[in-house]
Amino acid sequence: MTMTAFAQRLAMWQARIERALAAHLPSATESPQRLHEAMRYSVLNGGKRVRPVLIYATGSALGIAESQLDGAACAIEFIHAYSLVHDDLPAMDDDDLRRGRPTCHKAFDEATAILVGDALQVLAFQVLARDPNLPSNPAARLQLIDILATESGTTGMAGGQALDLASEGQHLSLSEVEHMHACKTGALIRASVMMAAACAREIAPESATALRRYATAIGLAFQIQDDVLDVEGDAALLGKATGADQAHGKPTYPAVAGLAAAKRRAAELHAQALEELGPLGNAAQPLREVSDWLVFRRQ
Amino acid sequence: MTMTAFAQRLAMWQARIERALAAHLPSATESPQRLHEAMRYSVLNGGKRVRPVLIYATGSALGIAESQLDGAACAIEFIHAYSLVHDDLPAMDDDDLRRGRPTCHKAFDEATAILVGDALQVLAFQVLARDPNLPSNPAARLQLIDILATESGTTGMAGGQALDLASEGQHLSLSEVEHMHACKTGALIRASVMMAAACAREIAPESATALRRYATAIGLAFQIQDDVLDVEGDAALLGKATGADQAHGKPTYPAVAGLAAAKRRAAELHAQALEELGPLGNAAQPLREVSDWLVFRRQ
Repeated sequence: MTMTAFAQRLAMWQARIERALAAHLPSATESPQRLHEAMRYSVLNGGKRVRPVLIYATGSALGIAESQLDGAACAIEFIHAYSLVHDDLPAMDDDDLRRGRPTCHKAFDEATAILVGDALQVLAFQVLARDPNLPSNPAARLQLIDILATESGTTGMAGGQALDLASEGQHLSLSEVEHMHACKTGALIRASVMMAAACAREIAPESATALRRYATAIGLAFQIQDDVLDVEGDAALLGKATGADQAHGKPTYPAVAGLAAAKRRAAELHAQALEELGPLGNAAQPLREVSDWLVFRRQ
Repeated sequence: MTMTAFAQRLAMWQARIERALAAHLPSATESPQRLHEAMRYSVLNGGKRVRPVLIYATGSALGIAESQLDGAACAIEFIHAYSLVHDDLPAMDDDDLRRGRPTCHKAFDEATAILVGDALQVLAFQVLARDPNLPSNPAARLQLIDILATESGTTGMAGGQALDLASEGQHLSLSEVEHMHACKTGALIRASVMMAAACAREIAPESATALRRYATAIGLAFQIQDDVLDVEGDAALLGKATGADQAHGKPTYPAVAGLAAAKRRAAELHAQALEELGPLGNAAQPLREVSDWLVFRRQ
């Protein structure tokens, strides 16, 4: 499969999740209109949809129909979107721009942004409890809910954000930085891959283990690349100011280990991720291509 | 059953939920410690536990073992607690005191309070997906998750808070005030009763309908009584400043209809709630007593 073919598939998945998100979000013409409008503004903003793409790519490796994955893909993107809206708040990272547009609390107001995050979080679980196209087996749905709850809770994403806030201006060791990243970003990346696996009718234990290890490696590589782009990326391409981590005194991987070491570590983790996919054979090709995209992207 | 017997049962339920909440909350000695400490501070604060009590009372009416209800009772109290932590934030109601103690963002900081709310919300769904004592039937668990998600989302609690914020300084009709209350407070009261019903092995359709109508009536009565207490309650008993609604220009029931009319409406809804319980017969006695407690309380 050429890069062009992957680019087409990526664009197809991105268009697919965009339609699914728009369909699952409450209409801005229904009460409470302003809250619904702010939810749609915060989600339908041209994001890269990394987590849904990982779900579709993992599903493709496991032979799962895309229609059975839409609900899980929406749920994880709602969780990701809520975390961005809350992280951008003045009391948190205090960011004014997100993907080239005013952040939710700038475009609306702080109270609305808090509620948008709260409402997007619960919408994620509502979709998993309800979406008629998800696997009809209730036990599989419960597993989806359990994975998403665990990976977005205090030992996952929310815990990572707490560690991140506590780390500003502190000296962290590289392993502490990696642990923070494993929670803050890695948890939802792992959730994406493992939720797709939970949608499979059956999955060999060694495949599940391979996918979990793959997700852990690629999640960390992805976050390191994010931090590298914050140092040397193009603000116009990224749609947000660069240098924000340094300005906040955040102990990122490049800040602690240096830029060259950060790039080496991302490349090493990328190679490790590809190696973990071995047991899945040729079927995992989409996941390999997604991995390249995640680590070699410029935006 | 005398009032004393009910008071004993109430105290027993309150002690029971306190133990269950403490057991389900992450330990403050585990990382991220500060977040976990703030979560425990925000939940284990001597609240009345109205929603868990409603779950146990409904369960008692339906003959469900209390041990099967603990998970649902914790889940709904975590949702209620998260909503209070977020509602108290400076960008929302800006309250410094809650049950006689500094609110979460005062005792900790705003960023932590935002994360505490986020983490309590997801913990609620994690408990419903995982608690081993809940009904083992996965379909019943999914129903619990669906009820809680729907009643706390934009057509329930979060939507009610959005309407509440939008209403400050506005003129609302009585029916608009009642709609706002039905979302903001009524939704979780209804969720409490209906989640207990979802834990029953089977329930007659007319009993489910009766319970839903009961919950809608008592939920509104409860909120009106809350607003009445904000006007004429004892701040020392309540553990928070009174007159806050008026200070915020909130169109509460007493503000729109007058204090006497508000009390009459609460009494009328209370009587209606008791009437709805008819089909459940003597078994519903605990729900009748809880209703008296909710509407005749002074704190």
